[in-house]
Amino acid sequence: MRLFAYQANGGRALGVSQDGVSFRPVAELAPDLPHETEALLGTPGALEQLATLLAENPSGAPMDGLQLLPFLERPNALWALALNFKTHIKETGLTTSLAHPHLFLRTVASYVGSEQPILAPPENVARAFDYEGELGVVIGKPGRHIPPERALDHVAGYTCINEGSVREYQMHNRQFGLGKNFEASGSYGPWLMTPDEFGEVALSSVVTRVNGVVRQKSGLDDLLIDVAETVAYLSQGYMLRPGDMIAMGTPGALPPAEGDAEGRDLTRQFGPFPTPGLVHMRPGDVVEVEIAGLGVLRNRIVADEPAQYRAG
Amino acid sequence: MRLFAYQANGGRALGVSQDGVSFRPVAELAPDLPHETEALLGTPGALEQLATLLAENPSGAPMDGLQLLPFLERPNALWALALNFKTHIKETGLTTSLAHPHLFLRTVASYVGSEQPILAPPENVARAFDYEGELGVVIGKPGRHIPPERALDHVAGYTCINEGSVREYQMHNRQFGLGKNFEASGSYGPWLMTPDEFGEVALSSVVTRVNGVVRQKSGLDDLLIDVAETVAYLSQGYMLRPGDMIAMGTPGALPPAEGDAEGRDLTRQFGPFPTPGLVHMRPGDVVEVEIAGLGVLRNRIVADEPAQYRAG
Repeated sequence: MRLFAYQANGGRALGVSQDGVSFRPVAELAPDLPHETEALLGTPGALEQLATLLAENPSGAPMDGLQLLPFLERPNALWALALNFKTHIKETGLTTSLAHPHLFLRTVASYVGSEQPILAPPENVARAFDYEGELGVVIGKPGRHIPPERALDHVAGYTCINEGSVREYQMHNRQFGLGKNFEASGSYGPWLMTPDEFGEVALSSVVTRVNGVVRQKSGLDDLLIDVAETVAYLSQGYMLRPGDMIAMGTPGALPPAEGDAEGRDLTRQFGPFPTPGLVHMRPGDVVEVEIAGLGVLRNRIVADEPAQYRAG
Repeated sequence: MRLFAYQANGGRALGVSQDGVSFRPVAELAPDLPHETEALLGTPGALEQLATLLAENPSGAPMDGLQLLPFLERPNALWALALNFKTHIKETGLTTSLAHPHLFLRTVASYVGSEQPILAPPENVARAFDYEGELGVVIGKPGRHIPPERALDHVAGYTCINEGSVREYQMHNRQFGLGKNFEASGSYGPWLMTPDEFGEVALSSVVTRVNGVVRQKSGLDDLLIDVAETVAYLSQGYMLRPGDMIAMGTPGALPPAEGDAEGRDLTRQFGPFPTPGLVHMRPGDVVEVEIAGLGVLRNRIVADEPAQYRAG
């Protein structure tokens, strides 16, 4: 099952879909369940109840034309892993621990949903604005001191993430800080897919396309620290909350094809790690992150308007 | 004026006080204003309106006996600065940029309010659990691309922060990650004090006491990157939200007094930077962070119970 948020009557509503084509509003299917994602994920049995009700009422409204929103509202923690694919470690030349996940946080304001504009910083602020296609893991059942072998019981579902990063700011100091938290610089979605439908993480893959050209592609069996280990690690320190999300890290750039002038032109790269096949995100680009079997997260890149204020 | 949150009828309420002795509930003084701190701070003129109403109705209920809560609810960003005092840079031997603030994020779950228990990790998880007394800066008016000379117009007020840190986890990798985000490992409060009452930051000072012994003490004129520069820097990347908070960094340890056996005993230190005068926070300790002219943030350290789940 897929769970998502969308714009309805000027407000926000949750929907569920089995096939990604037609959907039912959660409020209509199960009026007694919470209307907010974090509370819904924290209600034992809620997703199973919705799946049963959806199976009994399969015909719904078409998803086509819905304006999707980020499916989380005010999560406690939006974690992300740095340097969790060998190919990305190699291209950056940076070091990481092989024993412990390399974790940092992002703010709610740094993410938009699928088909919402991602904002590129003005060129006089930063130019090395990079996509990072990643698997997102969303916590359902709260937990503390979770052993790795039970960690996946705490996962409510998975999503696609574009963990957009402003390299100049990321390199301003040793902590990534603001470089990972520019306004609307990343995205996640289009939905949360439950584990029963997504299947085994290691059998899937992540692909990032910029204007249709594949720029990143990797199996999800290539993670340095896997989902279960990361969930278990975090639970050593705090009580995982429903809606806590973890971006599992991004793979390296694919080598550019022979005729790919843009991917071969290192003079158009402004970041600290010029890499063949890497291109920055620029206004007008369309960037897609696809997780096999899950779906496609798609965003147009739009020039940031300093005066713009996205409420929330 | 002081703005704070407290427990009322099993729920949460906001109060204001001029003197920190008697208070009026916000809902009673100005029923039309938002009842949530972030929304209140984002309402132009709301704090000024409350100050006027409070001056007209000075007699209130006693603050004594109130159970205070963290005054923010679901802020977009809880920033903190690493290595922003020369004394702390020296004791750690770590490097930092002199041009850009060294920023990382904390979660809502990592903080409690004044007089609420701070949780010390079980000894088999971590032992180098350290206080960090800091000035907290809370954003009021949203803003983007704010010049430093106008940055303080966006500050709604100041508070005391204990930016409690688990050193072993902080050193697991290059990003601080989980080490700065253990469950209820830090605190802020007791209230937000408005700038008109607090006065000039550089004239104040921060003191940290453990069981009554002064362990950190520094003027706030010793910041490497000051409040205005930090606010201006962050606004280059995103629209600052009402309720965004910035912990301005912690000073180094004070040299231990002659008879201070605990402060002189480096064999009782388990962190990466054994320093005379540094002690870890342990169950039973009472830790106070005082900002001169603002107030005292006080917490008892309590052993973490792995089974405990603090909702939210």
